[in-house]
Amino acid sequence: MTLWKLTLSYDGTPFSGWQVQPGLPTVQGTLASALAQITGETLLPQGSGRTDAGVHALAQVASFSLAAPLPPENLLRALNRALPPSIRILSAEIAPPGFHARHSACAKTYEYHLFEANPRERICPPFLAPYVWDCRWPLTLEPMQQAAALLLGTHDFTSFAASDPDLTTRTSNSAPNPIKTITLSTLHRHDGLLLFRITGSGFLHHMVRNLMGTLVEIGRGALAAEDLPRILAARNRTLAGPTAPPNGLFLVSVDYQNEVHP
Amino acid sequence: MTLWKLTLSYDGTPFSGWQVQPGLPTVQGTLASALAQITGETLLPQGSGRTDAGVHALAQVASFSLAAPLPPENLLRALNRALPPSIRILSAEIAPPGFHARHSACAKTYEYHLFEANPRERICPPFLAPYVWDCRWPLTLEPMQQAAALLLGTHDFTSFAASDPDLTTRTSNSAPNPIKTITLSTLHRHDGLLLFRITGSGFLHHMVRNLMGTLVEIGRGALAAEDLPRILAARNRTLAGPTAPPNGLFLVSVDYQNEVHP
Repeated sequence: MTLWKLTLSYDGTPFSGWQVQPGLPTVQGTLASALAQITGETLLPQGSGRTDAGVHALAQVASFSLAAPLPPENLLRALNRALPPSIRILSAEIAPPGFHARHSACAKTYEYHLFEANPRERICPPFLAPYVWDCRWPLTLEPMQQAAALLLGTHDFTSFAASDPDLTTRTSNSAPNPIKTITLSTLHRHDGLLLFRITGSGFLHHMVRNLMGTLVEIGRGALAAEDLPRILAARNRTLAGPTAPPNGLFLVSVDYQNEVHP
Repeated sequence: MTLWKLTLSYDGTPFSGWQVQPGLPTVQGTLASALAQITGETLLPQGSGRTDAGVHALAQVASFSLAAPLPPENLLRALNRALPPSIRILSAEIAPPGFHARHSACAKTYEYHLFEANPRERICPPFLAPYVWDCRWPLTLEPMQQAAALLLGTHDFTSFAASDPDLTTRTSNSAPNPIKTITLSTLHRHDGLLLFRITGSGFLHHMVRNLMGTLVEIGRGALAAEDLPRILAARNRTLAGPTAPPNGLFLVSVDYQNEVHP
């Protein structure tokens, strides 16, 4: 058996998220079908994490084992031929022993893209709509940037975790550890968009979208940047802002330290 | 009754083209529903021309009459609220008497976007895939540019018209005039894409896509630029190249001369 590491990009628009679900188009399911078509082997590739319906990936990572011996460049080409254009394999590598796309990950980076309709009632181009939050509020950048900086460091992110009762079952068999370390959290305007970029040791379900929804509450003046430490400390989802729409969210990259000896 | 001129942009991906068809999502049908929802009036907006399934518009023009007196800025805002994000109204104006989006048009500009996979097996980003032809052939630009320049002037474009037997019924009640005047026809590389831009007095069904398919035949060496006059003169669809995929095509603009007195 050969252990593989794939890096892939996908447009989340046509998919019901990463995780395989019966009767629904998913990235994991589509990738499994393509692998089965090429190798005849039935397997479920493991992702670095699930992305929700509508969430995109610039560089998701998946791992799996194959019995068929294949040169990496052949697997890459065959997969890109078998997959729809909405999923592209960027690289296919033989992974070091013990590698697992989720367990071996030490950090992830996400980016959230927000189209500012204000000022002056800008119209969001239809070609951009699947990839941004078309936000109608006028936003003040500075308090949002202050709040983003307050996320740096190690915190309990319970207030920003999805409050759905299925959370523990959906994420793993045990309750997820809500304590995460954020090493980068920036917000800036670029090319008519407001971009929120965040790197952390891990993320709870809906965490980036809930953080973005809260930053927008701060940007429009409904909350202050200084409220953020209080919201974190309360460990109470109801104090944070709403969940930002999925289509503005991109999984940018997954980092693996010690890839040679995981 | 007030005569209206709308300029709208749409992402053709989710639509079965412009023209209303029972049971299928179309731009014309979606626009008619939004207008009915806002005004209670039942009407079919007339486009400057039909776009096929998957074809996009940066600035399509539509005209129609409404009994309801509405300030233009209110109609624009109400429509953008009622329409899906894949269709955006860019402007709503009261049109001069006698204006008709198709009959009053004196020129149209289209752009075709081609992603060159060669050289070096470039991978087409999934976010670009709905908006480009991911072309696998290595292409030489110069003969394509020479051929594009040979399109300038007045020609009979029968060789580049869709050969489907429904053509006359689909386009109008009488056979369309195959003689068109091309005033701009350029091809250049920009931002990793190959862009073909063409302005003409009118276009036959599939004409831009058939021209693009033929330019690619020239770029990959299957035809020569010098073959183009011969193909035009033959008035025979089978001599030209294949029809390029719809998703690379954008209706860029529609020109109306004498808009005050059409």
